[in-house]
Amino acid sequence: MSTAPDKLVRLREALEEKGIHAYIIPSTDPHLSEYVPDHWRIINWLTGFTGSSATVVITDSFAGLWTDSRYFIQAEMQLPGSGFELVKPKAFQNTDFIDWLSGSLENECTIAFDDRILSINQVRKLQKRLSSKNISFDTECDLISELWTDRPPMPDSVAFDHPLEFCGKDRMIKIAEVREKMKEMKVNYHLLTSIDDIMWMLNIRGNDIKYSPLLTSFVIVGEEQTLLFADESKIPLKLASEFDTLKIVMLPYEETAAMLSTLPKKASTLINPSSTSAGLFNAITKGMRIVEDISIPTILKAVKNKTEIANISRVMVKDGVALTKFFYWFDENHGKTEINELSISDKLLEFRSEQKNFIGPSFETIAAYGEHAAQPHYSVAKDTASIIREKGILLIDSGGQYLDGTTDITRTIAIGVPSSQQKRDFTLVLKGMISLARAKFPLGTKGYQLDILARKALWDHGLNYGHGTGHGVGFFLNVHEGPQNIGTSAIADNKSIIEPGMLFSNEPAIYREGEYGIRTENLMICYEDEETEFGQFLKFDTVSLCHIDKTLIDKSLLDESEIGWLNFYHSEVYEKLSPFLSDSEKQWLREKTEPL
Amino acid sequence: MSTAPDKLVRLREALEEKGIHAYIIPSTDPHLSEYVPDHWRIINWLTGFTGSSATVVITDSFAGLWTDSRYFIQAEMQLPGSGFELVKPKAFQNTDFIDWLSGSLENECTIAFDDRILSINQVRKLQKRLSSKNISFDTECDLISELWTDRPPMPDSVAFDHPLEFCGKDRMIKIAEVREKMKEMKVNYHLLTSIDDIMWMLNIRGNDIKYSPLLTSFVIVGEEQTLLFADESKIPLKLASEFDTLKIVMLPYEETAAMLSTLPKKASTLINPSSTSAGLFNAITKGMRIVEDISIPTILKAVKNKTEIANISRVMVKDGVALTKFFYWFDENHGKTEINELSISDKLLEFRSEQKNFIGPSFETIAAYGEHAAQPHYSVAKDTASIIREKGILLIDSGGQYLDGTTDITRTIAIGVPSSQQKRDFTLVLKGMISLARAKFPLGTKGYQLDILARKALWDHGLNYGHGTGHGVGFFLNVHEGPQNIGTSAIADNKSIIEPGMLFSNEPAIYREGEYGIRTENLMICYEDEETEFGQFLKFDTVSLCHIDKTLIDKSLLDESEIGWLNFYHSEVYEKLSPFLSDSEKQWLREKTEPL
Repeated sequence: MSTAPDKLVRLREALEEKGIHAYIIPSTDPHLSEYVPDHWRIINWLTGFTGSSATVVITDSFAGLWTDSRYFIQAEMQLPGSGFELVKPKAFQNTDFIDWLSGSLENECTIAFDDRILSINQVRKLQKRLSSKNISFDTECDLISELWTDRPPMPDSVAFDHPLEFCGKDRMIKIAEVREKMKEMKVNYHLLTSIDDIMWMLNIRGNDIKYSPLLTSFVIVGEEQTLLFADESKIPLKLASEFDTLKIVMLPYEETAAMLSTLPKKASTLINPSSTSAGLFNAITKGMRIVEDISIPTILKAVKNKTEIANISRVMVKDGVALTKFFYWFDENHGKTEINELSISDKLLEFRSEQKNFIGPSFETIAAYGEHAAQPHYSVAKDTASIIREKGILLIDSGGQYLDGTTDITRTIAIGVPSSQQKRDFTLVLKGMISLARAKFPLGTKGYQLDILARKALWDHGLNYGHGTGHGVGFFLNVHEGPQNIGTSAIADNKSIIEPGMLFSNEPAIYREGEYGIRTENLMICYEDEETEFGQFLKFDTVSLCHIDKTLIDKSLLDESEIGWLNFYHSEVYEKLSPFLSDSEKQWLREKTEPL
Repeated sequence: MSTAPDKLVRLREALEEKGIHAYIIPSTDPHLSEYVPDHWRIINWLTGFTGSSATVVITDSFAGLWTDSRYFIQAEMQLPGSGFELVKPKAFQNTDFIDWLSGSLENECTIAFDDRILSINQVRKLQKRLSSKNISFDTECDLISELWTDRPPMPDSVAFDHPLEFCGKDRMIKIAEVREKMKEMKVNYHLLTSIDDIMWMLNIRGNDIKYSPLLTSFVIVGEEQTLLFADESKIPLKLASEFDTLKIVMLPYEETAAMLSTLPKKASTLINPSSTSAGLFNAITKGMRIVEDISIPTILKAVKNKTEIANISRVMVKDGVALTKFFYWFDENHGKTEINELSISDKLLEFRSEQKNFIGPSFETIAAYGEHAAQPHYSVAKDTASIIREKGILLIDSGGQYLDGTTDITRTIAIGVPSSQQKRDFTLVLKGMISLARAKFPLGTKGYQLDILARKALWDHGLNYGHGTGHGVGFFLNVHEGPQNIGTSAIADNKSIIEPGMLFSNEPAIYREGEYGIRTENLMICYEDEETEFGQFLKFDTVSLCHIDKTLIDKSLLDESEIGWLNFYHSEVYEKLSPFLSDSEKQWLREKTEPL
């Protein structure tokens, strides 16, 4: 038996000293976000696991990490030596760390956690499901700050204005729209904890978090004033004076809880229990009416306005040009110079950086060669980056943050001649992608109703993929954005009705462990289609622009209408991108986009 | 302004006398069932509306009825003169009577209802959503018994044994299986309120309710004893003595609540909050641990055992023979003798009655001609029964209760030459039915994921239908049975995972108000398909046997695989049914089932 690493040993000493039987650490921050500044990446520091979603439980004899299936391979590679084990649920059993606690802890134990980074929904679930065990909860227990001596400080970037030409709607109007909805819901206050909600409403951005242009802050929208909890030093004077005109009052970030406790008891507050920490929730004036629902800006920002949609169309051309230049460069240089997964990532960034208004990648580029691509969220490291050889499958999932929009696109290409299984797999994934892209459906349809369109061709052949099919995408904001979602499950959110103006990813895939992975991903915008006596129908318009590798297509598996879709898409790709390409790039793209 | 009818006037007098501002009446009984004895059909008595699902609210100035879209046309026809108006929700707004109460009542009103026939879930919802209005609730308010002088008595049929050769599993074993699950869930008692759960577990049936072989009763399963609340006179001696051996103790039906209040406080009880009345729920010993979940027999009986499945296959042959004989008779006699919607129903019953072990129809036969078929649940009356003319669409939805299974099948046929729109509509519905019938999907798939398969062809043409696609079917029990369900919504039940052994209907449709309706419905059983590295896959096997009217098919809309499915299905129909047909019937069926 190996001895536990130092960090775990010291954490256990702290547990023993305080009489704690189990300590819970989530991967989130006080905003319950997927996008977390380094200061809050406790699990990464403690276990070495770098995935974006996990929970850790530590007892005197156990140290386990729960994550979702996207990250199983990665966790199995990163955890050894950390003292932590990966806990996988059994098939179709949605067991989680609470089930483990429930099954493993004795009655009358003490469970501890830091309620600043656990949502009130999670804490309720925890307390409810352990209610029969008579557990004590130490809810304000931060054992990390003391142990983590070289912890990165809280981020301190400075906000910048997101101009009207990009965002399309004045902050004053947005705040008024939020207040109108608050009136309809009969609430006096609305607590905003999700940073992207705040950025959207105030038309500001920051640089506090890698890949997402966020400024760490909370907001309370009142009927007259808007309280912005962000340290004064983070708001430049010009913005601050405009905020002043709009009755946006700045207060220190740390005072959010204190302010919540001074709200008048007779008033009512709207909060989202999934993104509000138990700590903040419990700070709210006792006896006040609390309405729990999805936050209003989350709903409003999911539907892109006309300016945003026009900008998205333009940004897709820029992103497509960067990708096309990259793939041309790759074709020209592969076999001549050594290219590995990391240098692909660098080169792609180089091409995107040439585009106007480009700010940075919208997430860590996944450039995964061969078996690495079997990890849906493969994360490359310097010492493990594969060199691209003369044969195999290369999957590149990348995106950019531009002032005029956020992109997210995946292309899978063949190096050398692909096997017939690879071609079949690729073509079945493509069929799914096309089927969802061409969907026509009545207003009121929810994402989980459409998911099978992307899977059916795979299922028919006994194949499948373990992640969702489509996520919402922010506008110069988080690359993953709710509430919209196209997936197999309806449990996560019943508010997944698809509306005109929503932006979705469409990304079916297949992963063969130890062999290769294939994913094709485009973004689509929802529009109105015809209205009939049976109601208003909707459709998608695919907006991402980049050729799809025809050498991986088994044409015999496509029907005429699918071939028609692909040929039309390719003609659009050529038409829109070629004006921005050199003659040789143009010639190369013409071949890549010739009709099938 | 017309004066309110007498019943409503007297009800309002009672409201005023008791100081009640709003009175709520549901369409259910103390078992919260869709299948209700006449004694509890209060809404029918009060308003004339005969649909199976509705809620009524009465105030001094308003009398409204809420029902689902299946029954809108019917309610609009039946309500005039009753003093009640149909309240339709706006599109995509799931507004219900609670929203109406919330929007219409003053603060500090009194709302009354009879808590014996409202589920605890409904009452909680009601109280929660009206919480800001400071409403008083009079929960034990029965205003009906006094007013309804000729009310039918409580049903008094006598139970009969459902033999092992049909049901396939001994009642002793079933009870043991329920107890095993109770142990897993750590509960000492399990209250059963759904009568079909009780019938299944005890292998008994009764005749208390039209169309469903039910015996009004409650059950409390304990760790040693099973308490059956049904009046002694309803259990024949032979059954009673067997029950005695199995520690099944009989108690009067009316004593259920009293017994619940004597359960030991330290024990725990499992109840289903959707099918347990608020009255019974509130009777349970205070302070006792109550576990709320779907009831165990509901889950167990949804998966048919091998004997049941073998019986279902045989019963489908009998039912198919009866239908074929009927359709042959119709073809021979239509144009010679007058046939109307009611005589169709009678004739169909005649043919089913010739089959072995036939007990009765499993629901009121829907024989709907022309525009009548645009009502999904058309209910015929003597004075409105249409005569079948020389042209038009005839929809027949019918089913049988047999000792060896329950059937439910819809066929739509053309009288004369159908229009091209009728053929297109019929073929699109057929495409949907075939697509769902041929589905292959991984274990763990939920009904709402598959629903689109039945709709896609319709949606592609801007068409749709307003009801679910598939319901579970009982085994010589209710024709609608949960928890499985194939529909657009996931809100009703998250426990809709499709499992091998489950029996489903598959019934896409289209309704053109004022013109015609088309529906094609088969039953299917779920089986295991191949297991791959991506998991276990499942499939359906269509078990209903009756030809599909080829004169309504537009072949140009079907692809080869769909034609192949239909031809194979028709060859099976002929092969399995022809041994039981006369020579002329056989010849007729051969033509009907010839390859397309």
